[in-house]
Amino acid sequence: MTPAENAELALLLEVASTPKPGNVDRKRDLDDLRFEQFLAGAVGSAKGLRMAADGAPVGEAFERAVEGMSRQEGGNTQFGCLLLLVPLVNAAAESDETLTPEDATSVVEATTVADAVDFYRAFEHVDVAVDDPPADAPELDVRRGSDAVPALERRQMTLYDVMEMSTERDGNAREWTGGFRRTFAAADAICDDDGPVPDRAARAFLDLLAEEPDTLVATQHGEEVAAAVSEWADDARGDEAATDQLAEALVAEGVNPGTTADITAAALFVALERGVRM
Amino acid sequence: MTPAENAELALLLEVASTPKPGNVDRKRDLDDLRFEQFLAGAVGSAKGLRMAADGAPVGEAFERAVEGMSRQEGGNTQFGCLLLLVPLVNAAAESDETLTPEDATSVVEATTVADAVDFYRAFEHVDVAVDDPPADAPELDVRRGSDAVPALERRQMTLYDVMEMSTERDGNAREWTGGFRRTFAAADAICDDDGPVPDRAARAFLDLLAEEPDTLVATQHGEEVAAAVSEWADDARGDEAATDQLAEALVAEGVNPGTTADITAAALFVALERGVRM
Repeated sequence: MTPAENAELALLLEVASTPKPGNVDRKRDLDDLRFEQFLAGAVGSAKGLRMAADGAPVGEAFERAVEGMSRQEGGNTQFGCLLLLVPLVNAAAESDETLTPEDATSVVEATTVADAVDFYRAFEHVDVAVDDPPADAPELDVRRGSDAVPALERRQMTLYDVMEMSTERDGNAREWTGGFRRTFAAADAICDDDGPVPDRAARAFLDLLAEEPDTLVATQHGEEVAAAVSEWADDARGDEAATDQLAEALVAEGVNPGTTADITAAALFVALERGVRM
Repeated sequence: MTPAENAELALLLEVASTPKPGNVDRKRDLDDLRFEQFLAGAVGSAKGLRMAADGAPVGEAFERAVEGMSRQEGGNTQFGCLLLLVPLVNAAAESDETLTPEDATSVVEATTVADAVDFYRAFEHVDVAVDDPPADAPELDVRRGSDAVPALERRQMTLYDVMEMSTERDGNAREWTGGFRRTFAAADAICDDDGPVPDRAARAFLDLLAEEPDTLVATQHGEEVAAAVSEWADDARGDEAATDQLAEALVAEGVNPGTTADITAAALFVALERGVRM
């Protein structure tokens, strides 16, 4: 499999992995988001992933992947996953050896103002749940899409700079600026685990959720809820019935630990690159 | 979505559609074949599907698709699906209008001896359950792979000729030589149906199975079993509990109506080309 194929497969394995409490998975749909929309999102994003592997700029490849992902009626299925996967694919395709955190960091540190512009444009394809921008930079609200471009250019913000601005409130931004620490750790866990790969990914998801509060949950429901969900996940680890109960409760309450799912998808990609087979 | 993307998505929607009695689906794995292996098979086949869309010969695109499909450890996941999808993708990419049975027939009638050679080579990538060859043509046994090439060339057999030789015992060959009749009829049913697309595909699968005995079941278990399965499917139609009971029974007995699943995947492709959205 090529890096672009492994990335698409990682998207599919992520949504197939169950239980992933609060997320669409092989066993559960959400009210307004269905399993098959993730399948269509993965297929649609493949062209952008191939561009990333062929050396296209990170922002351009990401914007194309998101545009392709959006050709289904569920809305945002894999925006956050792609934000992690695109630089990882680019790094994997450029590396002669096994993909390392340093490879990935080199790619994100080399991003430009043009990458930031394309990242903002990607928000025009789909509604993404995000927090408010920093108080001193309201003109950099990602929800402004292309309208934020003059501010990006005036401030000479690269895509890496944009991510640095969001590390407080966004777990994916923390991956970008922190050497994809949780992604690589979860990939190690998946590689070292036994059994079907989707089962391993579901366990990695629950571990990630137990270890750190999900930032999408914090954005949508507040930090207290995010912390409570992580405590519950910690209690449920290793207990199938308790995990299923957590899954039912989060779906019923509309609590979606989506950032944790994003990191799980990225970890699946790294595990596939390292030779995990199924 | 491009024709190649729609074909890959059709493979994914087919395996996600449930219940599809006797086949891997969103709710069921088989003992030796798992859901995630179909995901990997679909991603791996995409390159061959793109070749078909770009006008590569049918045999060459098919052989590449099967080679890519085989990069997982489950063995044959979607060989029959690809045999139907490759000429359909080629026809859809060449047509300016909506894909018709005539477009598909033109493509398969134009196949060459070289296409037949590549088709036989594809059997070297994966074990496929097939019936014995006609008594007068033992040297054309597909299981011989490349060893059959001299016989193909001596007899000047095109891939269409090879399919004609198998229409008695193979439902996919009948699609090739019969204007993809059941594929297009099932696509109409999917387009005219309501609700989530995988649910529509599962109903189309059961209708197809009720209407004609599955030829893979006949090959593996005999014609009486194949006829009995179709009768049972006919009785179960429209009754969720009865359909689930049939699904459990066929999985337990190792009875796999795989040709019916192949036609369902092809029908999903045609439905997507005709604008079915999800």
